[in-house]
Amino acid sequence: MRIALGIEYDGQPFCGWQYQDHSPSVQEAVEKALSFVADRPVQVVCAGRTDTGVHAACQIVHFDTEVERDAEAWIRGGNVNLPKSISILWAQPVTEDFHARFSAVRRRYRYVIFNRPVRPAIFHGKVAFEYRPLDVAPMQAAAAHLLGEHDFSAYRAMACQAKSPVRTLYRLDVTRRNELVILDLEANAFLHHMVRNIAGVLMTIGAGERAPEWAREVLETRDRRLGGVTAPPGGLYFMEAIYPEHFGIPRLPPISSLW
Amino acid sequence: MRIALGIEYDGQPFCGWQYQDHSPSVQEAVEKALSFVADRPVQVVCAGRTDTGVHAACQIVHFDTEVERDAEAWIRGGNVNLPKSISILWAQPVTEDFHARFSAVRRRYRYVIFNRPVRPAIFHGKVAFEYRPLDVAPMQAAAAHLLGEHDFSAYRAMACQAKSPVRTLYRLDVTRRNELVILDLEANAFLHHMVRNIAGVLMTIGAGERAPEWAREVLETRDRRLGGVTAPPGGLYFMEAIYPEHFGIPRLPPISSLW
Repeated sequence: MRIALGIEYDGQPFCGWQYQDHSPSVQEAVEKALSFVADRPVQVVCAGRTDTGVHAACQIVHFDTEVERDAEAWIRGGNVNLPKSISILWAQPVTEDFHARFSAVRRRYRYVIFNRPVRPAIFHGKVAFEYRPLDVAPMQAAAAHLLGEHDFSAYRAMACQAKSPVRTLYRLDVTRRNELVILDLEANAFLHHMVRNIAGVLMTIGAGERAPEWAREVLETRDRRLGGVTAPPGGLYFMEAIYPEHFGIPRLPPISSLW
Repeated sequence: MRIALGIEYDGQPFCGWQYQDHSPSVQEAVEKALSFVADRPVQVVCAGRTDTGVHAACQIVHFDTEVERDAEAWIRGGNVNLPKSISILWAQPVTEDFHARFSAVRRRYRYVIFNRPVRPAIFHGKVAFEYRPLDVAPMQAAAAHLLGEHDFSAYRAMACQAKSPVRTLYRLDVTRRNELVILDLEANAFLHHMVRNIAGVLMTIGAGERAPEWAREVLETRDRRLGGVTAPPGGLYFMEAIYPEHFGIPRLPPISSLW
């Protein structure tokens, strides 16, 4: 039987999603908790692996198990055995052909910038801090240059292992809400550090240090070494993965209290 | 020379505002940082001492010093020497008759409840979790019974050391924003645990377990033992202290990104 879960986590205490020897990972914590509920080993696959310090509003995972448990048992039993920084939001049975990573047709990320003269204390690690006043209009103009299908080599990490650097960016919205500047991105998939590198370029443009066209110029170089700084991980949220409708995977509510 | 500061802090890593042997306090961290900037010992007085795990959007403090530093030096020098969970928002010279605690005529607190079926992960420790669906209308009706000058003995901690249990509650608003239910309180001053005890009673009423009138019935007993549960500290924010205008103390912006 294959089960899908929606999982929220705070990335601060973890070395990222993926299992690592000697470092606490989200994957290890989730597998431990589910194995406890199943009373036998459980291995999970996620929609989008996140780096150290990166959060998830709703990471999607799947796992296979022979034991019969209803959805509530996976949610409650899982949450009792998870650390406070991870929470299972929902659980449901899925067909055998559902795969959290390979079935996903789109992913959404959000990047949250706290823009004021002094660094945030209460939301330290939950936002990126930028003291330079950011002007949203040139950031939105820059974003327009990145929409569509492109070779995003200039925005991928040197260490990125994806076979192709071509991705289709469907959405890149820049909005301000009081001290917050929020980037909302949706693509078929993302390269390693792609959102944080885009955020770094847009912040430089928003601060007035470069014109909006610089986002396209960087893109066209296809050379990571000519790009901007990689924005810090604490501002990054994996929001959700989107699947063909017949799998019946719940969507994140469009309006939520998460920023 | 007397200096006033506005300070934001995340209460999670601290034993509360007040200095304690063997436990990290906000006061100790602030005094250490300012002493470093002044190059001699600095002692601070705050507007409202907060308990373990309670946050401050803008705690007001004052201190006396013979050294001449401009406001930017106190802010920047202080922030460089403070942990990430504390941030000085502003600094300014004040007259000798200003006292962060005794000059304050009103205080504002906010209590933030995360109301959904499963516990929050990203905002763990920053909100109170309530899985029972809360109906805001009866909570607001209950709040009306508490407005004005009352003997709040039934809402004060057993250990509260205030001489008088009489306080004037000017404002107690209950609002919902998506999964968040937010209580905004303003009073001349608050008793120990007063906001958390009011929050506990309102949550019980919002969950439908008691009628709105129960808030008044509890008040009239003047007996803490007949009240509700004390709501957890993580949902509580000291928002600001309000002073007579001639002191020139900045107000918190009415709309901010803090919840």
